[in-house]
Amino acid sequence: MQETRLDLARIRAACRVIDPIFLDTPFYRCEALEPDLGCTVSIKLETANPVRSFKGRGTELVASLLAENGRRAVVCASAGNLGQALAWSGRGRGLDVTVVASRFAPAAKLDRIRALGARLELVDGDFDMARERAAAIARHHGIRLVEDSLDIETCEGAATIGLELVDAAPSFDTVLIALGGGAMATGVGHVVKALAPGVEVICVQPLGAPAMTLSWRERRVVTTDSTDTIADGVAGRRPIPAVLDDLLLVADDVVLVQEASIIAGMRALLDHAGLVVEPSAALGIAAILEDRDRFAGRHVVTVVCGSNVDMDAYHGWVGTAPTVRG
Amino acid sequence: MQETRLDLARIRAACRVIDPIFLDTPFYRCEALEPDLGCTVSIKLETANPVRSFKGRGTELVASLLAENGRRAVVCASAGNLGQALAWSGRGRGLDVTVVASRFAPAAKLDRIRALGARLELVDGDFDMARERAAAIARHHGIRLVEDSLDIETCEGAATIGLELVDAAPSFDTVLIALGGGAMATGVGHVVKALAPGVEVICVQPLGAPAMTLSWRERRVVTTDSTDTIADGVAGRRPIPAVLDDLLLVADDVVLVQEASIIAGMRALLDHAGLVVEPSAALGIAAILEDRDRFAGRHVVTVVCGSNVDMDAYHGWVGTAPTVRG
Repeated sequence: MQETRLDLARIRAACRVIDPIFLDTPFYRCEALEPDLGCTVSIKLETANPVRSFKGRGTELVASLLAENGRRAVVCASAGNLGQALAWSGRGRGLDVTVVASRFAPAAKLDRIRALGARLELVDGDFDMARERAAAIARHHGIRLVEDSLDIETCEGAATIGLELVDAAPSFDTVLIALGGGAMATGVGHVVKALAPGVEVICVQPLGAPAMTLSWRERRVVTTDSTDTIADGVAGRRPIPAVLDDLLLVADDVVLVQEASIIAGMRALLDHAGLVVEPSAALGIAAILEDRDRFAGRHVVTVVCGSNVDMDAYHGWVGTAPTVRG
Repeated sequence: MQETRLDLARIRAACRVIDPIFLDTPFYRCEALEPDLGCTVSIKLETANPVRSFKGRGTELVASLLAENGRRAVVCASAGNLGQALAWSGRGRGLDVTVVASRFAPAAKLDRIRALGARLELVDGDFDMARERAAAIARHHGIRLVEDSLDIETCEGAATIGLELVDAAPSFDTVLIALGGGAMATGVGHVVKALAPGVEVICVQPLGAPAMTLSWRERRVVTTDSTDTIADGVAGRRPIPAVLDDLLLVADDVVLVQEASIIAGMRALLDHAGLVVEPSAALGIAAILEDRDRFAGRHVVTVVCGSNVDMDAYHGWVGTAPTVRG
């Protein structure tokens, strides 16, 4: 394999730095999902931790390095999950954390960022506008900017998921990874391709936020003017060139799925696995639902990467409606 | 401490027998729950495994012993979770598994027992009637009867949860354990009292199924004529004397909670922790909701012991209603 920016020895070392609360997450076959999906399905569950997503794996690396180097402050742009995780990791190490997010991000995510003690600044635009603002804050105050997917710690933190997948028996044929900025896709993909090259790495993105997928297909950065998806966690318009380069080396395929499939995936995970997930975490199931023939008879792993949803929106999506609570 | 039937060395050894898929489950502080509850709350999550409850810890011990001894068949009565777990553990070891359950048990549980390859026999009565029928089957066929809470493997399997609690930092003040037949309560209670005697062990049972609580209070077996609770997993009428003896040694208190509190607990776990749980798994949160003053300022651990619910019933309980799915 050509070399990505990631390094297996550093990824292994990361497991000794990251708070164990984010590691060795549940990884189990979910047979109740299988009749609907027509393949063997195992879930890697990244929601049962204090920030309800996989992002703590990366922010633990970032925050521990900052603390080691005597740094006091850090800023990031976030769709909502990175900000929570950085707030959590920074709080434990006495760092001042600033998070810039879109004011259209789910209230549940924004509320938790504040509750975890971070300073939250909202922009009247999308995630890519928040990235610009975070960079400006970093320049102005001379503090560390954490750039999700670009900063190697965010990729190598997520890559520890890959180690846990390949270390576990039994073997599997395919791993489905939600694709947004690319930290999880390149991280997990790097480890899988290095240690279990026979496993197919398929990244999944919403049709309504296809920038990285279009870029992967054209092998050059393609940006879009807007996004239109409920999967807020993966809704970016401007792929980062270095991340695309890595993705080109580790992804066997990148597929786009419809919103209706994402919703059907969330509903399947609720009804058959008892899991509340955010839309981004249902992308893998959505991909199977859209192409059962492709996966028939295979053992497919999907990373359930987050569960931070506004419950009212969630009930609307999965076909349940809040009733009056007396 | 006086001696229960449980043994710490055997419990430690059990961790080497039980499939790791049931061990080292997530254990994390859930701050989003805390404003409502007025105390520090940590969750021990027993739902992210192939049978969605803690029962696999015990059935792994049972099934591995049977297989070692060349036994081919086993029968148990089950409220629904033990049956699933025994079916799972037995299937992997080539055992013929028969499960006897009430025909009023949640369809979700009964469906999964069948799907896991067990023979399911339904009785037109409650769990205690299923116990009688299972015993008759065992006598008739000369096969092993697994009696939940009486058989030491079911208690010592559950007790491995206690090891994981006391091995984890930081310390906590109180553990809340759902109380039904008593396997989890005596198991976790034994380990906590042995290794962290300062931690308060509080068992929680529904007001509508209070037999073990009444027995604990009177220090003698008290049976009831019926049960009336949505918490199907803990709805027994006839406490087992030996289990009561153990419970008297390890429980600091046993409390009864109302149905409305169980529902409020399920709703809190959904809204603030993103967790779908069955009613029995919300008993701990229900106990806090009913007596916030008692727990104020303390660090309370609650074992979220299962998530096998009929989704229609669940939506009805937590205040969401299924809408027409087009």
